[in-house]
Amino acid sequence: MTNKDSAILWQELEQKHLYHTRVFDVASTRAVSPQGETGEFFLLDAPDWCVVMPLLIEENDKRRFLMVRQWRHGEKAVSLEFPGGVAEQGETPEEAARRELQEETGYKAEKLSLLATMNPNSAFMTNHVHIFLAEGLSKAGSQDLDSDEFINVELVEEAEVVKNMGKPPYTHAIMASALGLYLAQKFFLLPP
Amino acid sequence: MTNKDSAILWQELEQKHLYHTRVFDVASTRAVSPQGETGEFFLLDAPDWCVVMPLLIEENDKRRFLMVRQWRHGEKAVSLEFPGGVAEQGETPEEAARRELQEETGYKAEKLSLLATMNPNSAFMTNHVHIFLAEGLSKAGSQDLDSDEFINVELVEEAEVVKNMGKPPYTHAIMASALGLYLAQKFFLLPP
Repeated sequence: MTNKDSAILWQELEQKHLYHTRVFDVASTRAVSPQGETGEFFLLDAPDWCVVMPLLIEENDKRRFLMVRQWRHGEKAVSLEFPGGVAEQGETPEEAARRELQEETGYKAEKLSLLATMNPNSAFMTNHVHIFLAEGLSKAGSQDLDSDEFINVELVEEAEVVKNMGKPPYTHAIMASALGLYLAQKFFLLPP
Repeated sequence: MTNKDSAILWQELEQKHLYHTRVFDVASTRAVSPQGETGEFFLLDAPDWCVVMPLLIEENDKRRFLMVRQWRHGEKAVSLEFPGGVAEQGETPEEAARRELQEETGYKAEKLSLLATMNPNSAFMTNHVHIFLAEGLSKAGSQDLDSDEFINVELVEEAEVVKNMGKPPYTHAIMASALGLYLAQKFFLLPP
């Protein structure tokens, strides 16, 4: 917190649970504004998620991502994404990322690097998404999917992901977040 | 849709409304899997959102973003973000983006370019976020905030945003999505 924050800080009074589903809960929070007024805001509680960007680098420095193509019920369309999913109780984010990578693609990674832990939407989400870069990939078996998961695995060139991010089927915004963190590392290599 | 999608396509049977709040609604969808089994999935319906990356380019090509610092009730912390908000009924995404930019910062833009329209989380969100780059900024008045909005405006250097994205107070994942789309445009300027 910096000095300049003092005029924008709220103070939470209480939370109330409102509605439960299998994948998220709805709650409300009452909070006092910087000017002393009380407001009510709605929240969505969910377990943390993880996203893994599995990067394959070949000898000629050709870079490709291992991606998963699946139906998304929110968008009602097929979506091409980096692997990921919900962290189970008791799992660290890295354990969840390794498990999801192996279940969805059959690959394991020598090295996982946390790019960032972010809030999917700080306005109303209370959970976090842990975004990893995975390197040193090797085939460790076959997919191990839930009965309601149908996932095709694809290797996509880095340049193709960059060029198409934001266009169907690359429309899941958290995948653009992951790409943003990945590209941010390269930004300082740009010519001045 | 491509040929390879046929093994992963679901078909929606019906939706059911479950819970209403001022900012989103909870619904469920029943759908038939590629193998003919029925599943139930939970959805969050909300109006579309817009995000604007207001870019100031000075004569020496010094680039800075106009950003907004505000309390976020989901994260329960101060967050530094690109301006944005909910599109009101009857507004186009560009109109909403221009309105939010002016209300939150007091600036208007000569030129808005749509970087992408994405789904905030294709798994369960049904709405879209429209991400714009705003150029040709000029001061058009003062902020015009709702009674529950307390926003500090800041000019932040491009390199600082890139370097810090993912670390507090840059923890709102949709801002990393916006940055990802912005950096994707620069990617092809990288040395081979």
